[in-house]
Amino acid sequence: MSDNSFGMLFRVTTWGESHGPAIGCVVDGTPPGLALDEAWIQPFLDARRPGRSRFTTQRKEPDRVRILSGVFEGRTTGTPIGLMIENQDVRSKDYTAIKDKFRPGHADYTYRAKYGLRDYRGGGRSSARETAMRVAAGAIARRILSQRIKIRGAVVQMGDHEITRSRWSWAETARNPFWCPDAKVSVEWEALLDAARKRGSSIGAVIEVVASGVPVGLGAPVYGKLDAELAAAFMSINAVKGVEIGAGFGAAALSGNENADEMRMKMGKVTFLSNNAGGILGGISTGQDVVARFAVKPTSSIVEPRKTVTTGGRNTEISTKGRHDPCVGIRAVPVGEAMMACVLADQLLRHRAQCG
Amino acid sequence: MSDNSFGMLFRVTTWGESHGPAIGCVVDGTPPGLALDEAWIQPFLDARRPGRSRFTTQRKEPDRVRILSGVFEGRTTGTPIGLMIENQDVRSKDYTAIKDKFRPGHADYTYRAKYGLRDYRGGGRSSARETAMRVAAGAIARRILSQRIKIRGAVVQMGDHEITRSRWSWAETARNPFWCPDAKVSVEWEALLDAARKRGSSIGAVIEVVASGVPVGLGAPVYGKLDAELAAAFMSINAVKGVEIGAGFGAAALSGNENADEMRMKMGKVTFLSNNAGGILGGISTGQDVVARFAVKPTSSIVEPRKTVTTGGRNTEISTKGRHDPCVGIRAVPVGEAMMACVLADQLLRHRAQCG
Amino acid sequence: MSDNSFGMLFRVTTWGESHGPAIGCVVDGTPPGLALDEAWIQPFLDARRPGRSRFTTQRKEPDRVRILSGVFEGRTTGTPIGLMIENQDVRSKDYTAIKDKFRPGHADYTYRAKYGLRDYRGGGRSSARETAMRVAAGAIARRILSQRIKIRGAVVQMGDHEITRSRWSWAETARNPFWCPDAKVSVEWEALLDAARKRGSSIGAVIEVVASGVPVGLGAPVYGKLDAELAAAFMSINAVKGVEIGAGFGAAALSGNENADEMRMKMGKVTFLSNNAGGILGGISTGQDVVARFAVKPTSSIVEPRKTVTTGGRNTEISTKGRHDPCVGIRAVPVGEAMMACVLADQLLRHRAQCG
Amino acid sequence: MSDNSFGMLFRVTTWGESHGPAIGCVVDGTPPGLALDEAWIQPFLDARRPGRSRFTTQRKEPDRVRILSGVFEGRTTGTPIGLMIENQDVRSKDYTAIKDKFRPGHADYTYRAKYGLRDYRGGGRSSARETAMRVAAGAIARRILSQRIKIRGAVVQMGDHEITRSRWSWAETARNPFWCPDAKVSVEWEALLDAARKRGSSIGAVIEVVASGVPVGLGAPVYGKLDAELAAAFMSINAVKGVEIGAGFGAAALSGNENADEMRMKMGKVTFLSNNAGGILGGISTGQDVVARFAVKPTSSIVEPRKTVTTGGRNTEISTKGRHDPCVGIRAVPVGEAMMACVLADQLLRHRAQCG
Repeated sequence: MSDNSFGMLFRVTTWGESHGPAIGCVVDGTPPGLALDEAWIQPFLDARRPGRSRFTTQRKEPDRVRILSGVFEGRTTGTPIGLMIENQDVRSKDYTAIKDKFRPGHADYTYRAKYGLRDYRGGGRSSARETAMRVAAGAIARRILSQRIKIRGAVVQMGDHEITRSRWSWAETARNPFWCPDAKVSVEWEALLDAARKRGSSIGAVIEVVASGVPVGLGAPVYGKLDAELAAAFMSINAVKGVEIGAGFGAAALSGNENADEMRMKMGKVTFLSNNAGGILGGISTGQDVVARFAVKPTSSIVEPRKTVTTGGRNTEISTKGRHDPCVGIRAVPVGEAMMACVLADQLLRHRAQCG
Repeated sequence: MSDNSFGMLFRVTTWGESHGPAIGCVVDGTPPGLALDEAWIQPFLDARRPGRSRFTTQRKEPDRVRILSGVFEGRTTGTPIGLMIENQDVRSKDYTAIKDKFRPGHADYTYRAKYGLRDYRGGGRSSARETAMRVAAGAIARRILSQRIKIRGAVVQMGDHEITRSRWSWAETARNPFWCPDAKVSVEWEALLDAARKRGSSIGAVIEVVASGVPVGLGAPVYGKLDAELAAAFMSINAVKGVEIGAGFGAAALSGNENADEMRMKMGKVTFLSNNAGGILGGISTGQDVVARFAVKPTSSIVEPRKTVTTGGRNTEISTKGRHDPCVGIRAVPVGEAMMACVLADQLLRHRAQCG
Repeated sequence: MSDNSFGMLFRVTTWGESHGPAIGCVVDGTPPGLALDEAWIQPFLDARRPGRSRFTTQRKEPDRVRILSGVFEGRTTGTPIGLMIENQDVRSKDYTAIKDKFRPGHADYTYRAKYGLRDYRGGGRSSARETAMRVAAGAIARRILSQRIKIRGAVVQMGDHEITRSRWSWAETARNPFWCPDAKVSVEWEALLDAARKRGSSIGAVIEVVASGVPVGLGAPVYGKLDAELAAAFMSINAVKGVEIGAGFGAAALSGNENADEMRMKMGKVTFLSNNAGGILGGISTGQDVVARFAVKPTSSIVEPRKTVTTGGRNTEISTKGRHDPCVGIRAVPVGEAMMACVLADQLLRHRAQCG
Repeated sequence: MSDNSFGMLFRVTTWGESHGPAIGCVVDGTPPGLALDEAWIQPFLDARRPGRSRFTTQRKEPDRVRILSGVFEGRTTGTPIGLMIENQDVRSKDYTAIKDKFRPGHADYTYRAKYGLRDYRGGGRSSARETAMRVAAGAIARRILSQRIKIRGAVVQMGDHEITRSRWSWAETARNPFWCPDAKVSVEWEALLDAARKRGSSIGAVIEVVASGVPVGLGAPVYGKLDAELAAAFMSINAVKGVEIGAGFGAAALSGNENADEMRMKMGKVTFLSNNAGGILGGISTGQDVVARFAVKPTSSIVEPRKTVTTGGRNTEISTKGRHDPCVGIRAVPVGEAMMACVLADQLLRHRAQCG
């Protein structure tokens, strides 16, 4: 068990800092014989890559992943898959200004307090750069999942502007820079984000990840609940402050008869008349869409000056310049999808182990 | 690693079904030399016990816990602590009516689909009865935590009726049957709950758990984040559909300058001017109150008839009578406190291991 | 992960002290639908039970196991199986004499040094009584293994008297009090053991455990090697000081051409012309018999006085009376078989998870 | 939990194949603030490196390790340490001859049977090349251990030639190519090994690893026993077939009064009059030297032709040429030391967690 590993049987261990020579991960437990090469993984990384629009950080990272082990002649061998991405566009000097100050909303203060020292360059280990390896691991996880399982994410709220669900179009998510399924609201979001950037601030978001085609039976009764593991997975993403499944917090305001999804036989199969459960009952998948949402706080690296203290214990102010995403929630979409894929792949292997 | 265990170093493994002879748990990793006996644990169990007011199930369970190992002459020995509670008021015949029907909102269908068979009596393993052992384990966890750490829970929303935060009084939580910190709203809740029961329905709730006195430095950078583990802990409680930390989902609607808690030196110590972070930055505790909330869906066992299917694949209806909590959120309060205690104790031991 | 758990997917967690009210365990990860009741487990416990001949301790423990959870209508449900045995013949006063002295060869001194206190009655947690739960768990593990897999143990050396392998008869192991496969040497052993007891001493032994019918492919390449896990499993049994697989230490004295088991096709199947590997190559089972041996030191509780020190730091002598096995190796046979069963069951589930 | 990870809190995960682009590992759980750089690790790797004498493989690998993360300005940061060694002298064509044949004594057959495919080049994942990363991790582990703890290894038997213990000199181990502590027998070993090589065969060995200065109290009562973890650690090294602690298999032939190490106070401290226990009682260190031995089988890659079968199921013969160690036991010495260091470092952190 390790603080930098995730999953029980499909197990991902990441390493690397924002401004070190490279970041990487080890993916253990992958079944043998699956087709895998860099070309399969790269598009998922490209989706998360910075600099794809003016709404994300301008750090230029090609994020070319290399497979260093565990694949032979284009197939997984069942041994650990070593992945690495070299860091390229590292401007550590951007950070010397903040070396001796704790940035509010960042891990600077807590890292220093915990470890007694910290790699301050680009946030070190706490940089969202680590999530590139999650995306790579998620691409491998997708190979384990049957092709019937489709995992898709979307931003459903930016600031306090929510999408209108009746306008939902998955196709639309690829057509705007926000993974927004609502063409109309995405225009408003552009203005919103431009305004935030202009005043040196930032903005939060809510992301929804949906897995379709998940078979009934994944998960476990008590601590190994599918939703408990999704909650940990999403909450472990940088800047996430909340996670919900199905009706989520809204379920608290429903009555028992509204909330419990009724069931009916249809063409010889069990079906549900609604999906407040978000595809999970008693910690186990129902066969409906698994629906999860997570809230991402606004980027803490902002130009607008904030009160803070120095490592030496003096009051001061800080204005974080560097190159930052005005809304980290946008690039969290492929990360959320990847975490969903990893959790499902792990649960699938565990289910196969116990139930054959 | 096991689907019925929780925690890395302070490790709780529970067993038992609602209508079996007993439920129990093994608590491993407890430091030696701590004062412990049944009398310390029992009051926490009593707080969760059914039948304390007309707003909880009328099942009569004294829930007397026995310590079977790991304690010698009133002190923990460092070896595993075996705990057991015998089930008493078991009326399995209440359940024969539902033996062949899947109750909507329950795990009946998913268990059957996963395992091919299920102990249908009282929900078997998926019964909230399992949470009694969490509460017992949480009582042990509190022994590990310094006495400066105070963990308290409250119901902050019932149905769509929220508390008014300016009226918050911890003392009040002990004076009404809802752990409600707002004396005024608790009166409304009585009416709300009575109405729900009368029409054979049920109601959801939001619980807030606050840990004060937590030292800075608990948690870990990436997958071992304190908030990620709290998320898993709370989401693993029966009927929970959402978890949030600090400003939570509300953080999505804040701007970066509103959200990032500013810092100031005060009497030589680092302080924060707000607590949107909920006491956790970068997965590590800040020293402020750790504040978490979770949403509990309305009880799925309701008298009002619902559409469902039989195990044999026929459409039918079901009306669940038995003895059920009209709002399971109420009794989730001591459970939430216990999970907070378990997570903090585990993280404390892990911190001590790595950072001395 | 826990110091009192064993196995990854088939996971056994034991609790309990020699002179506490009970001992027990939780077996998690068992596949659902397997036939299981107390009657299946009890014979394995009876084989380990004390007092079956004059060559084992005279403590009278019926060792009646109760299944408290995880089984419904005679079938496993897939949820954790709680097992318990109540301690009966506890004579704690036997131990007050040794309360303040460290018995040489026992864990008394190290426990005290580690934990600062210890339950001195009957060795507390370090008593071999804990192994009863391993035997019970092993009985469940056998249910998971195909009936083609046969696990049998034998004592192959007592003191310095080895068996003659050409006289090996499995049937004979049931006919003498030593699980000895060599009828001739078992007579010598009787004399040997009687003499040891008479002079207030004790004697060591080597146990061999053989699993036949194990399919090729169980195990894993590096740290999850089948032999590495067997080594941990056997070494974790009380009083064990050595473990070997196949030719074991003898392999060091072989040349490369003698040691490497040659292969031949036979009836369309791969066969080996010898089994120096003990059924494991590169950490993975070959399909041949898995053959392991472990050495058990002589019982440390002996009447003959030995030099020791008191908990207060004075030199003294100790003569351990109580009721003790003159050769703990004998009762280690069913325990060794159980550990083999647990390791194989766990590896089988892990193999199924990864390789389908 | 992962088949390619080792340790609970000081956790090592390795990846890489013999003929892939690189091998590497992730070391998680290292305390922060420890001095660490490549220069500290490299000498340990050099000790294991091939080609240092005519008695090891002539493959030329500089084995230059790179630290890719977890270290900042010469100090560990508490985040995962990524290590990598690029493979250089890869002659995969040496292996095309054996692509379709299973080498007796190797993992070829079992890998193929388990995974359905294998990277046959140089043994792929089952190559002893993986042990380079253990050595690197062991170097980090030594940083965690107090400088009072000294870990040293020696070859104590080659073929059937044992050392004479009365001639033991640690200094001598550095003066011959065998890590042999007995100057006289090392001369015999030269002849022995030259003869084995000449006739195209190989030879086995027994290695002893001794840790001095280990404090009393490391380890745990039951499954987390220090000796159980050492057994797994050593047995997981390639080609190891047996492990013993202290008197080991010899303990079986001792009487209880000979075996149990007597105790005496000396200068106010508890001392032992002998060390049959090998420094471990009840799974917990006694403060005496921790003494372990493991047996390494003769190299399976030999020139002398052996009967085997093809992947297609035909009988054939094989003569393994390539570049191989005539006695893999020699290079296992630094690996054994490293595993001892890793186990002790992990247990030290666990002890600190539980007992402060």
